[in-house]
Amino acid sequence: MNKISDKKIERIITYRRVLLRLDKQLGKTHVFSHQLASSSGASSAQVRRDLMEIGYTGSPAHGYEIRGLLDSIGEFIDPDQKEGIALVGVGNLGRAIIDYFNGQSSKLEIVTVFDVNPDKIERVISGCRSYHVKDLKPVIIEKKIKTAVITVPSGSAQSVADELIEAGVKGILNYAPITLTVPHGIYVENRDMITTLEKVSYFAKNNTNK
Amino acid sequence: MNKISDKKIERIITYRRVLLRLDKQLGKTHVFSHQLASSSGASSAQVRRDLMEIGYTGSPAHGYEIRGLLDSIGEFIDPDQKEGIALVGVGNLGRAIIDYFNGQSSKLEIVTVFDVNPDKIERVISGCRSYHVKDLKPVIIEKKIKTAVITVPSGSAQSVADELIEAGVKGILNYAPITLTVPHGIYVENRDMITTLEKVSYFAKNNTNK
Repeated sequence: MNKISDKKIERIITYRRVLLRLDKQLGKTHVFSHQLASSSGASSAQVRRDLMEIGYTGSPAHGYEIRGLLDSIGEFIDPDQKEGIALVGVGNLGRAIIDYFNGQSSKLEIVTVFDVNPDKIERVISGCRSYHVKDLKPVIIEKKIKTAVITVPSGSAQSVADELIEAGVKGILNYAPITLTVPHGIYVENRDMITTLEKVSYFAKNNTNK
Repeated sequence: MNKISDKKIERIITYRRVLLRLDKQLGKTHVFSHQLASSSGASSAQVRRDLMEIGYTGSPAHGYEIRGLLDSIGEFIDPDQKEGIALVGVGNLGRAIIDYFNGQSSKLEIVTVFDVNPDKIERVISGCRSYHVKDLKPVIIEKKIKTAVITVPSGSAQSVADELIEAGVKGILNYAPITLTVPHGIYVENRDMITTLEKVSYFAKNNTNK
């Protein structure tokens, strides 16, 4: 397989969200590249190149057929089978992420969660089986989980990440306000809300000449 | 003021999170650039350049004095006075963001929230006064709010963004799974969790040769 850049994958995933909305909420059957571009922050030429790369071409008269394009994107992006994701740290944020995410993606689902609070373990929380963090490694290994979300406080985020990686996790979405140190070959997205909101507020004030 | 890049601001805000942790949780007084670099995903040279730009230099023997550096970063990044932020859409995710964010930043606070559900308006939710979305424009104008968080469903995110911008908002943190179209001069960060988690899962599978 060719090497696909981070940005390109992000764009293709964004096209899918736009297409799903056009299909399910607005009842559209076709879309032109310039429409897909304006709703996803890309250029029309970029949309055409990206979709050509996944092997889909539109017609100049009607544009792209939405359902067919959704299938092609799914074949390109999605895992072959349903994939279970783990989440560590079942506080307000963790629980909101589970409720928000599950049901939105056809192939991915948060199925296993971990916490240190005895009231939150050996239960079913928002449809997920919960375990104590001390059992993290054996559970992740047994369930062959490759993707995890970290929503623990900053003080324990690095040690949780280390254990996840030792147990075979390859991709981490980190909401803790700390930058994780991980070995080569592990993919991390840091999505700390505090950093992000401080940045947005900074540019809200200093952006007027842009 | 010189033009400061997006990435540089993000790094400086990240340094602050690392410094706060060293100060408050670990009781450290000094830090070397290489330590700050490894905890924030930057290079040592980059740390030194960034901090020189905000007018702070360390000593070769002791490194940077943490409290002084925190003050300098605060002067550089923070608004002069406390700044109130608005949040639109008080579902699970919106509420988790309020609870998570408030108290974490010295100058920024989510103070005003909007929803369409009658059970959620004209109340105090997680310490924030809540209003109906139909009153969004007058309330935002009166309170001179410049930064807002959007946590509404994708179908209403664009119209909410349009109203926020008409009322004077300059920076938007968008959690709805749609890319917002905004005029020149408005700063937007899209932080859709579905897109992000799909991307992390993709690279967890396809990242092994990286």
